[in-house]
Amino acid sequence: MTSPWALAVHGGAGHLAKSKTRDPGRFPYDQAIARALAAGGAVLRRGGSAVRAVTEAVVVLEDEPIFNAGRGAALCVDGSVELSAAVMSGRSRAVGAMVGLKSTRNPVRAARAVMGHSHCLLFGIHGDMYASEHGLDQVPSDYFLVPYRRRQWERAKNRSELHLDHSEDAHGTVGAVARDRRGFLAAATSTGGLVNQLPGRVGDSPVAGAGTWADERCAISATGTGDAFFRVAFARRAADLVELAGMSVRRAAASALDEVRSVRGQGGCIAVGPTGGPEIAFNSQDMVRGVWVQHQRMIAGVSTDDEREVSEIG
Amino acid sequence: MTSPWALAVHGGAGHLAKSKTRDPGRFPYDQAIARALAAGGAVLRRGGSAVRAVTEAVVVLEDEPIFNAGRGAALCVDGSVELSAAVMSGRSRAVGAMVGLKSTRNPVRAARAVMGHSHCLLFGIHGDMYASEHGLDQVPSDYFLVPYRRRQWERAKNRSELHLDHSEDAHGTVGAVARDRRGFLAAATSTGGLVNQLPGRVGDSPVAGAGTWADERCAISATGTGDAFFRVAFARRAADLVELAGMSVRRAAASALDEVRSVRGQGGCIAVGPTGGPEIAFNSQDMVRGVWVQHQRMIAGVSTDDEREVSEIG
Repeated sequence: MTSPWALAVHGGAGHLAKSKTRDPGRFPYDQAIARALAAGGAVLRRGGSAVRAVTEAVVVLEDEPIFNAGRGAALCVDGSVELSAAVMSGRSRAVGAMVGLKSTRNPVRAARAVMGHSHCLLFGIHGDMYASEHGLDQVPSDYFLVPYRRRQWERAKNRSELHLDHSEDAHGTVGAVARDRRGFLAAATSTGGLVNQLPGRVGDSPVAGAGTWADERCAISATGTGDAFFRVAFARRAADLVELAGMSVRRAAASALDEVRSVRGQGGCIAVGPTGGPEIAFNSQDMVRGVWVQHQRMIAGVSTDDEREVSEIG
Repeated sequence: MTSPWALAVHGGAGHLAKSKTRDPGRFPYDQAIARALAAGGAVLRRGGSAVRAVTEAVVVLEDEPIFNAGRGAALCVDGSVELSAAVMSGRSRAVGAMVGLKSTRNPVRAARAVMGHSHCLLFGIHGDMYASEHGLDQVPSDYFLVPYRRRQWERAKNRSELHLDHSEDAHGTVGAVARDRRGFLAAATSTGGLVNQLPGRVGDSPVAGAGTWADERCAISATGTGDAFFRVAFARRAADLVELAGMSVRRAAASALDEVRSVRGQGGCIAVGPTGGPEIAFNSQDMVRGVWVQHQRMIAGVSTDDEREVSEIG
């Protein structure tokens, strides 16, 4: 008797204008979430691994310009993009991660490529070179740049502000957690970081135990003010609350988020354990996410009171 | 009634030839350890903070060419050095960290400089630029290069090996943990990484929750095969075992090391809690370390059965 496979994806936590969620033409997050669920779910349905499922789901979200990952990433203070991603296997505890990529089209594929080898995490040009040597698509930097990210950056720069990635037109960090047919868990996260951040910043997303984690009991992908998640080693904390304090995945995620809040951070996470459906927790106003569990319908949502069935063919 | 102040420093875990530890002229680790203890202890004695004490102790060890941190760092596959460090305050949970520095004389001072600001961790040239803008000494790359590191690298390169930093003539990653007179804890770690590693590698040392951690109950600095420590989020795990499982600092460190071993890692850590003396745990053959507790003598040691009193004036 095995548990059904399960998949959750997210597109960042933050504050979405009501008008945006009501106007699918303006912010078509639900179609993007459905495509990501379909890509990951297709892997799980045919008996593929949780690691592969989260990777494929995140690739879809990286390619979507409305999220802050891959194409459509937020800009650094110098107007450049720096892309980070991580993948972790709960089965082997293998981690692959990259930070500060500038030319690899899908950072999560680069993270997957380094996973299981001698190094877990590479930064900058070294990461892009590794990805290139492993046959991953390299693209010119203007592939990643989209007009509203430039406008968002110009506003932030004029005000000397450093802020979260969401805005009127675009949303956040992306991630996925999955449980496969064999009951193994995995997590992946991908991000462009904060708007107007210093180049060279390492946030929580590429760090195992901070923004991304998977073990036998819990897989987690987080999003939000990354330095706060990094400071409290958020994801490892949540996993330890499950294992050592006997909390449910849902309660552990909420409790670890309280620690993030205690260092003035905000955001959220998706998480899944060996049984039951994926959980969503956030202390921001909204969190873009979707869930698909075997034998059930795909669900996408933004705020607590806004969940709806979605399908791949929107 | 406050606990006495306490300080521990380490210079890496690994395998030291017996002959080396018996010949102080060949490997003068005990004098170096004593100088580091003296520098950190001087801060604590006059009522200074644990954060400052660990920073000053690590600066001494970075300047010592026999350790793999600052001057004397291990070389990457391209013959360059890449320096990483982190500092964490248990009181505020503030973290400052740097990875892949190439010109900042004391990486731990760069980590201290970024601590408490908007970004926790910077990589590469961006970290060196930040340090330089904050007035920290910049040095040419040959400042860091010492002859035996070049020989060690050439041997590793000829054999296409990636290995830990210790060898006949030099030892490992350095770190410090402290409890100050007010009972606050802090930890710092500094390293040059693995011998023959890819440039761009991020190990555990600069990552809060992996190689470095401090909260109200526990401050930890780790050393060893960093990717294994990163994969298990070692230091956060040990701290959670103290808080959530009620283990002593000593038992928690040993238990978290068992997890490192389960992913084929080896190494050790120093740790200190709100009461009692600092603890040392390692699953390698040796670990170079020293301890100084208020009203007691300085002690330095390498293996379990080899501890001796040291003094600043060797």
